[in-house]
Amino acid sequence: MRGPDELGRLVERALDELTFHPALAGLEGPMRYALGGGGKRIRPVLCLATAEAADGRAEDAVPAAVALELVHTFSLVHDDLPALDDDDERRGRPSAHVAHGEGVALLAGDALLTEALRLALSYERREPARELAEATLGMIGGQYLDVTRADVALEDLHRLKTGRLFAAAVGLGLWAADVPASDQPPWRAFGEELGLLFQAVDDVIDGDGYALELGEEGARGVAAEAARRAHERLDALDADTTVLGQIVDGLAARTV
Amino acid sequence: MRGPDELGRLVERALDELTFHPALAGLEGPMRYALGGGGKRIRPVLCLATAEAADGRAEDAVPAAVALELVHTFSLVHDDLPALDDDDERRGRPSAHVAHGEGVALLAGDALLTEALRLALSYERREPARELAEATLGMIGGQYLDVTRADVALEDLHRLKTGRLFAAAVGLGLWAADVPASDQPPWRAFGEELGLLFQAVDDVIDGDGYALELGEEGARGVAAEAARRAHERLDALDADTTVLGQIVDGLAARTV
Repeated sequence: MRGPDELGRLVERALDELTFHPALAGLEGPMRYALGGGGKRIRPVLCLATAEAADGRAEDAVPAAVALELVHTFSLVHDDLPALDDDDERRGRPSAHVAHGEGVALLAGDALLTEALRLALSYERREPARELAEATLGMIGGQYLDVTRADVALEDLHRLKTGRLFAAAVGLGLWAADVPASDQPPWRAFGEELGLLFQAVDDVIDGDGYALELGEEGARGVAAEAARRAHERLDALDADTTVLGQIVDGLAARTV
Repeated sequence: MRGPDELGRLVERALDELTFHPALAGLEGPMRYALGGGGKRIRPVLCLATAEAADGRAEDAVPAAVALELVHTFSLVHDDLPALDDDDERRGRPSAHVAHGEGVALLAGDALLTEALRLALSYERREPARELAEATLGMIGGQYLDVTRADVALEDLHRLKTGRLFAAAVGLGLWAADVPASDQPPWRAFGEELGLLFQAVDDVIDGDGYALELGEEGARGVAAEAARRAHERLDALDADTTVLGQIVDGLAARTV
């Protein structure tokens, strides 16, 4: 069983070797730019680790894992645009629209999203693509609530904006490992905890969200509680979940 | 066999009755706004008419037809944004970003694209969703060439930007009618002509593209030639293609 770092290298290699639809031509550069820059690849690693823990082959989960990273990257490219968060930097580099212009960044985001769904459609069964599409819709809905500062609980906002894609990372790993739908619920209960864990830690690092609402200690408490529940869910599974447990600990201890 | 107008009403009804993913919540208004305003629904009608001509039921092609209109609408919403064409009006109304703000229009476009692929995934087989994703990538690639004013022949640009989605309208109609892949090529040869026909007429109406390059008469000639070839392709099919022929004539005679 491979640890998170080794699975991360598998993801990087797959991203390097990824070929895009030939019609995209010149958009490939901006798309690769957005995918680069040293992202943490948490979602794809989670997907691969889930597949291995569920007695599948990580290699079979690679298209799904890459698709998750493409959706995540699409969301960053669009959210960074002046019309939304107006962020000029991403991972210490100029964000996509600063490097390539707003119009090209917009199209690159569209193409990343569409390529992601095309990749998820490389599986015989349609479930991975459906799950990815639904998670993406949840994420977009969450971003809408965030942008419009809708009167909604932080937890509900995060469940959509961050949680859906984390949950889908687990779900897609299960489909890739051929876990029947009837056996998936206990795994999915684990996946449901991860978005909140990620987001609460993120808020501590950035000093917003939960850290604003509950103070830094309060936000750390939310994260610790989510990590505890995630481990509890893992313990309930009849499987070797060592690597998934390491991912939980890595998420909880994250400082950047 | 139903004519284009009756099929158009079927499309309007399906769009009216379309339900979006519940997580989208408030985005539904802007999405419906973008879908409204009296679009011509040419692509979905073409999809339904293809299904009927190929001995299928138009009703079975409705999800595919609606998915095509969602992709088309997504492309209009994003292309109208200031970062791309910066169009304030669409179908005689304020365009989506003028009515709802740039950020919301961006997200509404993302959601329309994702919902389209989710709809195409309502078919048992994955081919409709794959074909729609590939056509969308071609369309995005075409828009990129257009925006960057790449040194590319007008015909190649249009083949991507307009042609791919028209061809997919025929392709999705064939999948919905259960036409086996091996029987599809002569139908697809018909679909290949329609994008050029549509675009050449569009250029005459707008006074750009072919009309700039070849003069109005020249552009009319390109359209007439494409219409002639489209009829020729229909004549080669062993099927009642009356309605498809009417669609060709309608496209050729279009003045708005």
